[in-house]
Parts: sequence; structure tokens; C-alpha cells
Amino acid sequence: METELDLSRWLEECRAFCAEGMTADYIPALAKADPRALGIAVHALGHEPVSAGNSGNLFTLQSVSKVFTLLLALMDHGEEGVFERVGMEPTGDDFKSMLKLELVSGKPFNPLINAGAITITSMISGASRAEKWNRIREFIASLAGVEEIGFNEEVYLSEKETNYRNRSLAYFLKDSGVLDGDVEEHLDLYFMHCAMEMNCAQLARAALVLANGGKEPDESGGRQLVPRRYVQIATTFMLTCGMYNSSGEFAVKAGIPAKSGVSGAIMAVVPNRMGIGVIGPALNDKGNSVGGIRLLEKLSREWNLSMF
Amino acid sequence: METELDLSRWLEECRAFCAEGMTADYIPALAKADPRALGIAVHALGHEPVSAGNSGNLFTLQSVSKVFTLLLALMDHGEEGVFERVGMEPTGDDFKSMLKLELVSGKPFNPLINAGAITITSMISGASRAEKWNRIREFIASLAGVEEIGFNEEVYLSEKETNYRNRSLAYFLKDSGVLDGDVEEHLDLYFMHCAMEMNCAQLARAALVLANGGKEPDESGGRQLVPRRYVQIATTFMLTCGMYNSSGEFAVKAGIPAKSGVSGAIMAVVPNRMGIGVIGPALNDKGNSVGGIRLLEKLSREWNLSMF
Amino acid sequence: METELDLSRWLEECRAFCAEGMTADYIPALAKADPRALGIAVHALGHEPVSAGNSGNLFTLQSVSKVFTLLLALMDHGEEGVFERVGMEPTGDDFKSMLKLELVSGKPFNPLINAGAITITSMISGASRAEKWNRIREFIASLAGVEEIGFNEEVYLSEKETNYRNRSLAYFLKDSGVLDGDVEEHLDLYFMHCAMEMNCAQLARAALVLANGGKEPDESGGRQLVPRRYVQIATTFMLTCGMYNSSGEFAVKAGIPAKSGVSGAIMAVVPNRMGIGVIGPALNDKGNSVGGIRLLEKLSREWNLSMF
Amino acid sequence: METELDLSRWLEECRAFCAEGMTADYIPALAKADPRALGIAVHALGHEPVSAGNSGNLFTLQSVSKVFTLLLALMDHGEEGVFERVGMEPTGDDFKSMLKLELVSGKPFNPLINAGAITITSMISGASRAEKWNRIREFIASLAGVEEIGFNEEVYLSEKETNYRNRSLAYFLKDSGVLDGDVEEHLDLYFMHCAMEMNCAQLARAALVLANGGKEPDESGGRQLVPRRYVQIATTFMLTCGMYNSSGEFAVKAGIPAKSGVSGAIMAVVPNRMGIGVIGPALNDKGNSVGGIRLLEKLSREWNLSMF
Repeated sequence: METELDLSRWLEECRAFCAEGMTADYIPALAKADPRALGIAVHALGHEPVSAGNSGNLFTLQSVSKVFTLLLALMDHGEEGVFERVGMEPTGDDFKSMLKLELVSGKPFNPLINAGAITITSMISGASRAEKWNRIREFIASLAGVEEIGFNEEVYLSEKETNYRNRSLAYFLKDSGVLDGDVEEHLDLYFMHCAMEMNCAQLARAALVLANGGKEPDESGGRQLVPRRYVQIATTFMLTCGMYNSSGEFAVKAGIPAKSGVSGAIMAVVPNRMGIGVIGPALNDKGNSVGGIRLLEKLSREWNLSMF
Repeated sequence: METELDLSRWLEECRAFCAEGMTADYIPALAKADPRALGIAVHALGHEPVSAGNSGNLFTLQSVSKVFTLLLALMDHGEEGVFERVGMEPTGDDFKSMLKLELVSGKPFNPLINAGAITITSMISGASRAEKWNRIREFIASLAGVEEIGFNEEVYLSEKETNYRNRSLAYFLKDSGVLDGDVEEHLDLYFMHCAMEMNCAQLARAALVLANGGKEPDESGGRQLVPRRYVQIATTFMLTCGMYNSSGEFAVKAGIPAKSGVSGAIMAVVPNRMGIGVIGPALNDKGNSVGGIRLLEKLSREWNLSMF
Repeated sequence: METELDLSRWLEECRAFCAEGMTADYIPALAKADPRALGIAVHALGHEPVSAGNSGNLFTLQSVSKVFTLLLALMDHGEEGVFERVGMEPTGDDFKSMLKLELVSGKPFNPLINAGAITITSMISGASRAEKWNRIREFIASLAGVEEIGFNEEVYLSEKETNYRNRSLAYFLKDSGVLDGDVEEHLDLYFMHCAMEMNCAQLARAALVLANGGKEPDESGGRQLVPRRYVQIATTFMLTCGMYNSSGEFAVKAGIPAKSGVSGAIMAVVPNRMGIGVIGPALNDKGNSVGGIRLLEKLSREWNLSMF
Repeated sequence: METELDLSRWLEECRAFCAEGMTADYIPALAKADPRALGIAVHALGHEPVSAGNSGNLFTLQSVSKVFTLLLALMDHGEEGVFERVGMEPTGDDFKSMLKLELVSGKPFNPLINAGAITITSMISGASRAEKWNRIREFIASLAGVEEIGFNEEVYLSEKETNYRNRSLAYFLKDSGVLDGDVEEHLDLYFMHCAMEMNCAQLARAALVLANGGKEPDESGGRQLVPRRYVQIATTFMLTCGMYNSSGEFAVKAGIPAKSGVSGAIMAVVPNRMGIGVIGPALNDKGNSVGGIRLLEKLSREWNLSMF
């Protein structure tokens, strides 16, 4: 109760910062979101979830989905299989950058930049695109604790038609032999999982499973949905590369593994303690939710959430 | 007569250097060429063409065609129209590099690197792809002094299917707003003109027209096929950017405007004096014909061809 | 007892990997170190330190000292003062790289790459170089729990005379206005603190203070040597940028904040649990101790040390 | 007579463009120059020199001197000796860039960018700095047709004290083994020859010697001051790299080998026809004289000076 009051108060304080950002303009369907919206759900282990602000708003996952496909690829191919194809290093460049692909290695530097995430998507097992897509949906639904995950077809079609930069990246990867098979099919699946739709409570529940080492909370059955080691890998990447090229700053200021998307979503995982889902469509120049970052930094200070 | 004997002797001397190079391996149809082949035709103003070595071999134009499409685009849109879309600077990077597109400007640095040449191809006027293609063919045929230019369908299909790097470049340009319209259509036309086929005599005749300021030699009718100013522009680019990222070295050593292709073709223009066509499929690590470069450097020294 | 036996066994297993590396060859005085040496000291909170292998060997701190000067600069200027001058992001480039300084910003990306560390050194307060130097020595001695820290004059002079790349970096920073004052004086102080000398037990004790949130262990008096927030900042950088451009990989594989130096030293901090000091002069191509990394990864798995 | 009238008229037309530029602000002594000044001297073979505007103004050579030291280094070490140490390619980057040194090769790309020119300066033969300096002065005086070349001590001291970026470049080159010996001594000699002082007539006379293949005009004695081949090399570099990173554009628009300096000086060589000296301190963002470039482009069109 007190927590919920605090949360609301802090959220309203941070909402002011939304005015400093802008919604993503390169995907028409994202540009329409309300730049003043800010919502959060916090799901602590052994507690009921609490929420504040526009936490009921639906949003597409965008880059947040990269964490889930990374986990699935690890479950499909193991650590070695995945790291044959993508590296483990932050780049210092923006998420769509191709510099290091040309300058250093055709192998994407890590699984959370676009080049790496497209490669990871291409590795999801399945006899057909439909089967791969079903596996992704079911896996994410199990993390979010729902029967079925939403899908925003308008956003999907909008990205599929206009995202020439990701198409450029994918053909570059095909050229260097990193991507096998049909580039357009991989891109299609990538755009599809970016367009999956959630609210803050669902995102916080998925984060909670990761905070709990891959295990559902006991009240939902306590099943191990993901091997603990893979959760460890994913949250490490969230800390070092999860917030685009301000991951380092967010680690210093908040110290929490988190992954952002250009819809304004952020999923934050506080190991052994809680999962957090945030939405705030106004983005800073790095592509992160302005209000969301401020709110998570506030929570980290107030509740002492930093891992360090 | 004496010229022809000299030419044969020098060519045989330079043939030895072919062993230092390799045929282009990324286009299967090019990899099959004879790496020991070396041929040349020299067409001086007011003289009969002379030739030596494997000058009768057919070869695809590859990047040599970029000079011709540049001329056509200049005739279609004028100087200002063309340089709104591409720059005028050498890059210091390899021909397929995307670095400067990301680091400096989405606008290609010059019309002879791949990014610039694809942009130029997209500007060729015509109501349909067929019309554009016919205009390119007829224009090049007029320069080469033939009824019809050959076309190597195997090479075209091979590039179209496997050239993922050019596809990556083109989608990057689409993303930055440099390319309008249908990317795949532009790429298709680009691969088509790269696959046009000639022999050395035809290439030397086209070079001669440029050496003659855009005018046919008198014995062919003396028509002005290209405005003199556009020839001046094209030969300037040949000198500063025509030999990939060893253009500077070739300018110092030979001092002749020239354009090479990964088939091993080189077209060289000695203003007011002669046109030269060379074929030598063994390439150095920059993508230039090893034997061809040596032979042109030799001719430059023997006949004092440097512009400087 | 058992711990010590385990430690010795694991160390000997990892010693084999030393053969894959080489001692730093660009500093003559470092090149002479024994490439087969491998030593470790582990100091857990509330326990006596344990050690194994060549833990008594003396080594210079090199880049490990960057963590200490960062702490001192934070104590001198506060968070805001420090981050006006250096950023918070990993670079993805090697430690001596100047690329991002030219391409992105004259401000160094983080305080642990050379450009950032030289900037930090220039910020240490003191009326004279001697006073600055004394402050650094006394601060580090207090962390290591000794009266006085050693200093290797041969290494210092060797670096001072031959380290042209750091001189190049420093003048670049002077040119962009990041460095104030006398470049040579800042470099001199930088080379001096890189040449401070320790053994594994001393390094483990310094790490323990950081693991303990900046407080001495109770048995040494329990004084707060560094404010907790600054320790948090320093260990965050150790995790995201501490192991040169394989920091991301070390975070995934070991998950422990650590800082390496080209002497083969590594200082590792396991928050709230233990401090570790390692020496192993044989380096991999990124500049990290080959045997040291293997040993820390082993400890992380065996003792479950990952923060994630 | 008519020529002089034309020249004055065109110069006054171009003077208007000076307002678009600014004097070099990073060297205090250069910043004081009159931004409205524009002067030219044209010295055609077999004719008396003509001049217009502020042609009597004195200016320091700055980067124009790089052409002269290149010639002297070629005379000291031959073609092979020089090109062991510097390359032949344009970079596409600005004159002080270090990118390609780190990304491609420690060897400077060409002798006219700062990295290459500092290397060339280090190669000038002489038992002492004084002897080297005398050799440079005497050589340039012979080209300019004067007893003694001026020297601006204020500019020299200003650059020596503040040019940290060139110092950074030089130590980088020392680190990669490109520079031998004492870096500060090489830099000193470099700053000295950049500070040599001329007027337009002297610069035009030096250019005329190059236009005449290295030979003095007959009326001055007709001695071969520089071997013809070395002049050919120098003018080739002037065309491909002489106007910083707008060399390509100047080649397309004017087609004349030329070298600019940040004092606003330009030396232009029209092979076999004329030498031109220009001064106009207002610079564009690439570091070239705004009015000077416009004036040379105008002359090229009016007098048909393009080599192409």
C-alpha cells in the first residue's frame, strides 16, 4: 500500500522528463503513441504486483524481445552454439551501427544489437516459419504468465515495409556468412517478435521469472522455465549492453540489468528480488524511454537496487 | 608495325606478373576465367587500332560500366542534378565499404564506388526498366562503335543471386533517403550493366571517344556523342577514384585516367591521344588486374603518357 | 585448509594455459617476467587470506591502478566533477584506441581506457606533483593495508621513455581541451602510479575493502576509507570495462567486477564476499593474463561468484 | 594588359565569397589576417608575371610547404626511399585525421596530409637541425627566385606552443615506428617550414618552375632545379590530395594541381603553361581559401586550364 503510493508519487515526478523526449518517428505506427504516457508495474518475489501511471497501456516489445529470443536460442543450441555466431562485447556504437561489422569482424559483437539479434532470430529452431513463430510466442507467453501474447499487426507491417536499415544489416550478415538461409524470412520473423504486445504487468512477470533464476514464482507452479545458467547469461548482457549505447551510464546510475525498446518499453530484472515492467514512449537520443530511465534510477536509489 | 611488336614484347614481359594475382572468387562465373590471360588494344587518334596478347577474349565490364552510366546520368540530369546525389571525393576505403556512409554522410562519396554507382544507376531516365536498359546498351554501343553490345547472362544471374553486399549497400542508401523507388529494380539494372560484354578493341574505341573529348573519330563520322564537359568530369573521376583504393598509386606511377573492373578489365583514356582497352583476369588484393596495371605503367613510361 | 588445497589444485590446472600467452613486449622491463608464473590470494570477509602458486611475486599495478585513481578523483571532485570530464560507456575498442576520440567525442568514453585514465590522473588534487604522488601512494597503501607501497623505478623509466602512444593520446586530449595544464607532468604521474608494486595478498586486501563497500575489515579497524557510492561506481566500471575489450566476455563467463593490467595483474571484487589478487604475466591478445582469467572463471563456477 | 584587367575584374567578383569563410582560429597569429584580402599572381611561361588584388600581402606557407619538402625528400632519398615511409592514396578524411593510422596502417596514406608531411620532414638530410633548415630555405628560395625566403617567427612560435594535434600525430607515428629520432626536433623543423613567408609573385614563380618540369624559366638561367620525374610525382599528389578533403571536388571543378594552406595560400601549377600564387585568408570548413578556390575555378573555365 505504502509502496504503491510511493510508486505513484515518484512516477508523477518523473513524468515531467517525458517532455525532453520524442516518440520513435521512423516507424509510423510508433510515432502515434502518447509521449506523455508513463506506466510501471513492479512484481517482487513473494508479493502481489503493484503498479502506477499508465501501466495498463499496451505496447510492442521491440528490442525487449531480443532477450527472449536469446534465451530460446540458448535453449535450442547451448552456449557454445550461440557464441559461435555472436560475440559478447559491448560496441560503444548505436544499435543499428555496421561499423564494427566492417572494421573488426563480420560476427556481430553481441546478441542485443540489431545485427546480433537478427542472427539470433535466424537460429530459432522450427521446421517452418510458423513453427518458429509459435515457439517464440509460447515461450514468451509462459514467461509473462498468460495464455497468449498480443500481436500488433499494424506495427509489424509498418516495420516490415520501412525498415531498410535492418534489411541492409541482414544482407551484410548474409554476405559475411553469418546468416544462413533466406534473409527475408529471418527479417520477417524478427519484425514479428518485435511487434508482440504486452502491458506492464505482463512484462514485470516475465522479468520476475528471470529475477527468480528462470523459475516461475511458486504461486504459479514453480516450474523451471529456463535453465539458470541461461538466465545468468541474458541478465549479464542486459547489464552490459541492454540500454543501447547508454548501457554503461545506466549501469553506473541504476545498476540493474535492463532491456529497452524503441516503443518506450523497459524490462528490468533485480536478481533474487523483483521484476519490473515500464512503458514511456518519449525517447531520448539513444532510443531509451526518458521517463522510464529516470523512474528506474529513482527506484534504484530509493530501494537500493544496484547490484554493485 | 613497330608499335605492335613493342606492344607484344611488353605484354609478354608483364604476363609474368599475372601469377601474383587471382581471379575474382566471389562471383562464380568470374572465377572460371584464365588467370594467365592478358590482352590489350590501343587506339590512337588518327591511327588504326593495334593489339596484342589475348585481346580477342570477351569479358564483362563490371565496374568499368560505372563510367558509362555516370556519363548517361550527366546527360540526363546535368552536373547539378548528379552531384546533389553523389559527392566528388576519393574515400581511401575499398569499393564496397560502408564506413563513410555511416560515419560522414549518407550521400556516397563519389560515383565510382559501389554506393555511388548504384545511386547513379537509379538515376538513368526511362519509363520502364526495359527502356532504361535499352538506353544504357545503345549508349555504350555507340561509344564502342558497334551495333550491339554483348551481355553475359550467366555472370548477371550469378551476381544477382549472390551479391548480398551490394544489396546491403542499396538498402542502406534507401534508408538514408539517397535511393528512391524500388531497390531491387535498381540493383537488377546495376547487375545488368556490369554484365555487358566486350573485347579489348571495343573498349579501346570507347576510351578513344573519351580521349577525343566525347567525339567519334572522324573516320566514324565525327559526331559528338557526349558533351565535352561531361567527359572532363568522368576522366577526372577516373584519375582520382578509378582504380579502387590504389587510384593514387596508379596516378603517381602511370598518370592516366583509367577505370578497372573485377573481371580484370581496364579502360584507360589518354586525353587528346589515345584510348586503351586491357583484359587480365588475375587481380591484386585491391581488385585491379595485376598484369594490366603493370602493362599500363610500362606504356606510360615508354610512351610518356602521364598527364603530369 | 580445504580451500587452500582446492585453490592450489585449480591454479596448477590453469597454469597450463599460460603457455598460450606472452609477456608484454612493448615495455622492456615487463617482458622479462616469468611467463609461467601464476599466483593468487583470496581474502574473504571474516576469514584469513589464503593463497596459492607464485602469490609472493612482486608485480607493477599497471592499469589496475586506474581503479584507485578513479576513486581518489571521485573523492576529490565528486561524481559530477568527474563525469564532466570522462564518460561512462564501454568502447568495444582496445585500451589505447583513439578512434572514438576522433569519431564521436573528444571526451574519453570511460575512466578505465587509457585516454580516460590519463584524464583522471590529471584531476588528482595536490599543490605539486610530489603532493599528488604522495596522496595516491598513501591512498593505495591504506587500501592494501600496508605502511608503504612499493615502486618499480625501472618499469617507470622504461614506460616514461618508450610509451609514445600514451603521449600521443595525451596530446590529443590536450588539443580537444579535455586535459588542462602540463601534459608531460600528467603523463609522468600516470606512469608513476602504473609502476607501483604489490604482491597478491596486498592486492586482495585492497579488493576486499571494495568488496566491503569501502570499509576496512573490522580486524583492521573498520574505518570507511572510501564512500560506499564511489565504490559502487568503480566496481560497476570494473564489470563493464575492466578487462579491456573482453570485459563483456569476462562478465558472461565469470560475472565478477575485475580490473587487469599488462603486468598480468588482476584485481577482482566479489561484493559483500571477498577480494582477490592474481598475477600471471603471460597475456592474451587483449592484454589480459591468460592463466589469471582461467583461474577466476574456475573460481566463479566452483564458488558460484557471479553477480548475475 | 588585357589579362591584367580581366584578372582584376574576376578577382573582385570572387572577393564577395570571402565573407562566407573565416580565418584559421586555432593559430592566434593567423586569426589576425584580414578576411577580406584576396590577391593573385599569374606567371605564364615566356611572359611577365601579372597580378591583381592584395598580391603584395605577405603570408606564411603553411601546408603549401609540404610540396617543397616532398620534392627535397625525393631528391635526398629517391622514389623508393620516400614511398617506403609514406603511401600514395587520398584518405577522404581531414588533414589532421588519425583514423586510417589506427584502422588501416601506421604508415601515413600520402605525403600531403599532416601525418605524411611530418614524416617527410623527418627525412630531410642534414647533419643538424640548422643544416636541414638551411637546405629547406635555400631550396625554396631557388624555386621562388629570391635570395632569401622570409620567416614569420610569431607564427612559428604560436604553432610550436599550441599545435597539440600535430604533436599527437607525431608521437603516434613514433609509436608505430614510422618516425625515427627525436620527435620534438622533427616537429620543430615542421613548424619552421610552415612559417616561411612569401608573397603571391614568389609563390607563382615557384609554381612556374614546377609547371616547367623543374626547370627555371630561361630568362633566369634555365637550370634544372628539380628532376622532372619528382615534379611529376609532386603535381600528381597536388591533384589527388592537394586541397585537403575537397581535392576531388577541386579536380572536377578546376582540374589543376594545387596545394592549399590554412593561411589562405594556394599554389597552382598548370603543366607546361603557368604557375599561380593566391592568397585569401578566409577559409571554408575544409581549410581552403574560399575566395581563392572561386578565383581558380573561374580562371580554369575562362582560360580552359583543366588537364582533363
